Amino acid sequence: MAIIVQKFGGTSVGTVDRIKEVAKKLIQFQQQGHDLVVVVSAMSGETNRLVGLANELNDNPQGRELDVLLSTGEQITIALLCMALEQQGVHANSYTGSQVRILTDNTHNKARIMEIDDDKIRADLAKGHIVVVAGFQGCDESGNITTLGRGGSDTTAVALAAALKADECQIYTDVDGVYTTDPRVVPEAQRLDEITFEEMLEMASLGAKVLQIRSVEFASKYNVPLRVLSSFKDGGGTLITTEETEMEQALISGIAFNRDEAKLTILGVPDSPGIATQILGPIAKQNIEVDMIIQNTGHDGTTDFTFTVHRNDYPNAMAIMEATADELGAREVNGDDKITKISIVGVGMRSHAGIANIMFESLASEGINISMISTSEIKISVVVDQKYLELGVRTLHKAFELEQK
Amino acid sequence: MAIIVQKFGGTSVGTVDRIKEVAKKLIQFQQQGHDLVVVVSAMSGETNRLVGLANELNDNPQGRELDVLLSTGEQITIALLCMALEQQGVHANSYTGSQVRILTDNTHNKARIMEIDDDKIRADLAKGHIVVVAGFQGCDESGNITTLGRGGSDTTAVALAAALKADECQIYTDVDGVYTTDPRVVPEAQRLDEITFEEMLEMASLGAKVLQIRSVEFASKYNVPLRVLSSFKDGGGTLITTEETEMEQALISGIAFNRDEAKLTILGVPDSPGIATQILGPIAKQNIEVDMIIQNTGHDGTTDFTFTVHRNDYPNAMAIMEATADELGAREVNGDDKITKISIVGVGMRSHAGIANIMFESLASEGINISMISTSEIKISVVVDQKYLELGVRTLHKAFELEQK
Repeated sequence: MAIIVQKFGGTSVGTVDRIKEVAKKLIQFQQQGHDLVVVVSAMSGETNRLVGLANELNDNPQGRELDVLLSTGEQITIALLCMALEQQGVHANSYTGSQVRILTDNTHNKARIMEIDDDKIRADLAKGHIVVVAGFQGCDESGNITTLGRGGSDTTAVALAAALKADECQIYTDVDGVYTTDPRVVPEAQRLDEITFEEMLEMASLGAKVLQIRSVEFASKYNVPLRVLSSFKDGGGTLITTEETEMEQALISGIAFNRDEAKLTILGVPDSPGIATQILGPIAKQNIEVDMIIQNTGHDGTTDFTFTVHRNDYPNAMAIMEATADELGAREVNGDDKITKISIVGVGMRSHAGIANIMFESLASEGINISMISTSEIKISVVVDQKYLELGVRTLHKAFELEQK
Repeated sequence: MAIIVQKFGGTSVGTVDRIKEVAKKLIQFQQQGHDLVVVVSAMSGETNRLVGLANELNDNPQGRELDVLLSTGEQITIALLCMALEQQGVHANSYTGSQVRILTDNTHNKARIMEIDDDKIRADLAKGHIVVVAGFQGCDESGNITTLGRGGSDTTAVALAAALKADECQIYTDVDGVYTTDPRVVPEAQRLDEITFEEMLEMASLGAKVLQIRSVEFASKYNVPLRVLSSFKDGGGTLITTEETEMEQALISGIAFNRDEAKLTILGVPDSPGIATQILGPIAKQNIEVDMIIQNTGHDGTTDFTFTVHRNDYPNAMAIMEATADELGAREVNGDDKITKISIVGVGMRSHAGIANIMFESLASEGINISMISTSEIKISVVVDQKYLELGVRTLHKAFELEQK
C-alpha cells in the first residue's frame, strides 16, 4: 500500500464547500487503497486578515508572536477538514506542526525544517485514518511555534513525504501541471508528463507560479517524487523527478521567460580584481535582486559590465550605477528597461551539441536581435527587445518541436 | 514583588483598540512593581464564527477537532496582545495551553486541569517580561489540544495563580464587582469589598453573571485570593477570599434571587424509602435540573413532596409528574410557575442566631406569604409569589442594613 502525501493550498480550501470537495476527493483516493497524509494551507484570505490585525497593533511585530498568530490559519483548516472527512464517515486526525512534531530552527517567519517525528502519523495510518497536517509551521527545540515563510506548505508536504518515505508527494494547485511554455503565449504549449528537478529549478520563471522553488530543491535533495496537479480538474499533472526515471529525454523540456527585466551596462571600468563587487555591492545593499550578470573579457585595461534587474528596480539601480561610475571613473553608464529574457531549458543539452545554434539560428531567421547571452549546464538564456517576446517564444517552441507531444 | 494573574475576557479584548487599552493598563500595573501573568479569551465573536464553520461541515463535530479549532481563538489574542505590549516598549511572551504546558485530562470540550508546568513563566517573569497565556485551553498527556468548556478562561487564570502561588488572581469583566443584590432591583445595592468563597458560591444566581462558579470552587480549593474588577472602570472590585482574612463579618453579605422558577408538588405519595428517587428519577432522565427539594415529615403513611425547576422546564416536568403520580398512586399533583426564590447569604449566620426570624418577620410585615423554605449553613431561601420579588428583595436589603456600607 502506497503512502501518498497530498497538499492543498489556500484556494483549494478557501470555503466550506471547497473543503467538502477536498474531503470527497481524499476519500476516493483512500478507497483506491492509498495511505493518505494531507497537508493544508490557511483558507485563502485568512493569513491576510491576521497580518492586518498584527499591523494595526505593531509597526514591526515580533517574529515569535507573528508565528503564533499566523499558525492559527492552518490550524483552523486542519480541524475543519477532519470534521468534513468524519461527516463523510472516514476517520481523520489533525496535527499542528508542534504536534507532529516538525522540528525547525528558531528563525521565526522563515524557519528551516530540521527533523520530523513521524510516529503518530504512522500509528494513525496503521489504523486506517487519514492524517491531516498543518502546513507552513513547526516548532523549535524550546517548543516555540515557527513558520516556514512563503510557500511553506509545499515544503511541509515534501518534508513529510521524505520522512515517511512516501511514494509520491502531490501538490494540488490551480494549474494542472507544468507546461512547455506559458499557454497564454503559445496556445500549442503542452503539459509535460515529467520534468527533472533541475529543469524545474531552471524553469523558475514559469515554475514559480506552480511550485515554490524551495520545495523543489527540498524534494530534489531527498529524492521525493513530486507531482503537480489541479484541485479543480482531473488529470495526471506533471511529475517532477530525478533524471534516471525518465523514459526518453527530449532535447529541451520547455521555454521560460521573464517579462519585466531591465538591463544596465557600465562601460570602461578598470579591469581589476574586485571590480564586480565594487559595482554590485551598492546594488545589493539596496536589496535589489540581480538576475543575469555578464562581464566580457577586457581590453586596454578596462572592461564592460552588464547585469539585469527587475524593471521596478530600474530607476533605483540606474541612480546607484551613475554614482558608482563616477567613483570608478567609468566611461559611461547606459541601460534599457524594455527588454525580456527568454530561456530554453532541458537536461538534453548535456548530451546534445548544437542546441545553442538551433536557438540562435531560429531567432535570427525571424530578425530577432540578441543583446545578451548567458548559459548554464541545462539552460540558455538570451535577452531580446521586449517587443519580440511572443514571437521569440513561439519561434523557439516550434524550433524544438515542443508542440508535438 | 507580588505575582498577579489577570484575566481579560472576550469583550475586553474584542477589538484592536481594546487590546491596546488592555496593554496600557498592564504596563501601568507592571510599573507599580508587579510581576504580571495575563490570561486572555478569544476576541468576542471569534468563537461563534469558528463554531459556525464547524457546524457547516459536521452535524456533530468530533470533540478533538473542535478543540483544535476553538483553541485558535485565544491563540490569536495572545499574539496580538504581545504585539501591542511590545509596541509600547514592554517585552512580552505568549504561551498557548500546550506550550505552558497546562496538562488536562482528555475529556475534550470540558477538560479538567491536572497540572501546570510554570518553569517557562517563572523564567520570563524573572527577565521582567509580561507573560500572556491563552485561556480556556490545555493539552492532554499525548499532546492533544483540549478546551475547558464554558468559563474556562477564568479557570485557567485561577489555576495559574494557584501554580504560581500568586498574590492575587484578578478577573476583569464588564461589572465592577459583586453587589449586595442586583442594583437594577435595589438601587441602593452596595458593591462588596470582600466576600467569602462560600458566600460567592451561594450567591450563584447573582454571581454567575460575574464569575463562573467552577473557577470560584477552584480558587476556594487552592486558596487563591480572587478579585473581580471592571475592565472599563477604575475601582477595587470585590475580593473573594477565605473567611479568615476578613476584618469584620456582617450578618449577611447579600441577597440573591432566581426569577424564573416553577414549583411542583406531588401530594399523598407513600412515605417509603426510595420515594425521592422514584419521583425525581424520571425528571433527571429528561435532563431537567431540580433546584430546591422539600419533603415534609409524613403522616398516615403518606407524604407530600415539592421541588422547583426552571420555568422553561415546567410543562415537561408537569407531564412527567402526572405519569409518576399515576404509577405511585399519589393523591394529586399541583404546581405553580409564577414563583420566585429569594435567598439571604452570609457566613455571619453561623455565629448569629435569629437571622431567619428577621427574614420571616420583615417579609410578613409587608404581607408577603412564604410558600417554601429551605436552609443551608450560610443561606436561607424562601419561595414567594413572583409579584413580590422586587418588594421582597428591597425589604430584606433594608432589614439587614445592606445599603449602609
